[in-house]
Amino acid sequence: MSVSGFAVDLGGTKTAAARIEHGQVVARLQKATDAGADMDAQVAVIADLLGELGYENGAPLGVAVTGRVDRQGDWHAINTGTLRGISAAPLGTTLRTRFGARAHCVNDAAAAALAEARLGAGRGAYNFAFITVSTGVGGGLVLGGRLIDSGNGLAGHVGFAGTRLGDQLCGSGRVGTVESVAGGRAIAAAAGLPDARAVFEHGGFAPVIDRSAAAIAGLIGDLTAILGLDRVALGGSIGLAPGYLARVMRHLEDEPALFRPEVVPAELTHDSGLMGALLIAVEADEG
Amino acid sequence: MSVSGFAVDLGGTKTAAARIEHGQVVARLQKATDAGADMDAQVAVIADLLGELGYENGAPLGVAVTGRVDRQGDWHAINTGTLRGISAAPLGTTLRTRFGARAHCVNDAAAAALAEARLGAGRGAYNFAFITVSTGVGGGLVLGGRLIDSGNGLAGHVGFAGTRLGDQLCGSGRVGTVESVAGGRAIAAAAGLPDARAVFEHGGFAPVIDRSAAAIAGLIGDLTAILGLDRVALGGSIGLAPGYLARVMRHLEDEPALFRPEVVPAELTHDSGLMGALLIAVEADEG
Repeated sequence: MSVSGFAVDLGGTKTAAARIEHGQVVARLQKATDAGADMDAQVAVIADLLGELGYENGAPLGVAVTGRVDRQGDWHAINTGTLRGISAAPLGTTLRTRFGARAHCVNDAAAAALAEARLGAGRGAYNFAFITVSTGVGGGLVLGGRLIDSGNGLAGHVGFAGTRLGDQLCGSGRVGTVESVAGGRAIAAAAGLPDARAVFEHGGFAPVIDRSAAAIAGLIGDLTAILGLDRVALGGSIGLAPGYLARVMRHLEDEPALFRPEVVPAELTHDSGLMGALLIAVEADEG
Repeated sequence: MSVSGFAVDLGGTKTAAARIEHGQVVARLQKATDAGADMDAQVAVIADLLGELGYENGAPLGVAVTGRVDRQGDWHAINTGTLRGISAAPLGTTLRTRFGARAHCVNDAAAAALAEARLGAGRGAYNFAFITVSTGVGGGLVLGGRLIDSGNGLAGHVGFAGTRLGDQLCGSGRVGTVESVAGGRAIAAAAGLPDARAVFEHGGFAPVIDRSAAAIAGLIGDLTAILGLDRVALGGSIGLAPGYLARVMRHLEDEPALFRPEVVPAELTHDSGLMGALLIAVEADEG
């Protein structure tokens, strides 16, 4: 996978941009994201960062964003509370107008899943899932070598699947989702601390963390029943926290052998969104 | 889809074989399945039926079977109780030895899913799931036009995903699966009647049937979160029983709009396994 081009990862806290040559990040810049800025302001920041990296119009460009990206490239925030808060923005069209037809946008977890499948923890797997556990729970699916996409951009949002361990309303509007039990917001709320980092640093909330790991193990069993997975990579600040994957594995031992795929840590933690976004742009070019 | 060739559907109670010309079943034979017979005896029955239909070695041949078919074509029964009961048989190899390289075998629900996607209720959908609710709960997934398969043949076994409504051990060895709540065996057990047909004929077990429908609605929501489905077709003797789909739809109304795909009845109920098996054989030939 010797891809070359440019990539952007527009996250909730920071916007990163990179020039990639032959599969290596050779230059990288980032800025704090202004969460209150509108799409045009955010595209202007992207253009500034790309300009500093030597981007010229027409080069392959992948943009990974938090939220739901539909097949037209329209961008939908999934807000907390209920789905009434969704706002849609024609990010794909705006990017193509500004940067040319080789610009593509994609959900950040889907981008990371593709990067892991091609270059990281998913190499050699036939049916592969990437699950990221951080503030929320997201992911991406690469089945038979193909990243699963969908008309509404929901594909891969595995954290919105249900779990027997949950009964609370989730930001997605569903009740009892994996995210509402396993995600960092849920962990922090259950521990009565401001965020999941504080919970892990405190060291005294093993049952809360274990409940998160049990929900992720159940999700892995469910995804394996549905998709016949042979490998799952866990990423995200909680998924990669010391001891977390071991807890997930212990809960998976309760599953019959057929429902226990290989579970490994993600390998490309730092730049997987950037690399995956560029891979999607390049693979879309190829057909 | 103007496929021509031969197809077999080897089920728990009957073995059907058909000659198909230009997408139409032009001749069809069936025999009671001897559930106690070994694989060689069952292949002999298949050969007899095909011979009567004018089959000649080398013609495209698809064989749909109950149970798990892995990517090598090996066949695994998923027995009741625990997975200790699994028996493996090299059905794919045996079929190719006997009938030539154009013979393929596939899980019957996966075959039905592909037939619905190409010729029936799934036409025009981008991400499509077929869910069959009868004695058990099975299915198949056609995503971006491609039937999802897997190394272990588990892909599409959506009835083995979990549901918040379940807490019993399922024949798969998992606890609290959709099948253990929604399938015919579970419905009959909950009603204290010999089989699900008796429950539907009795007419007095609405809460039991409604619980099945609620589990299927939850499964549809989960599959939509994971895969971004735009359409689901329900099949099987229970899935197509009068009033059942309407119950599923009522439970789906509790889901946010994003998690509610179109839900329709399967269209190709009688011959979908046969037609799908032949489609798989023909599409495998085409590469």
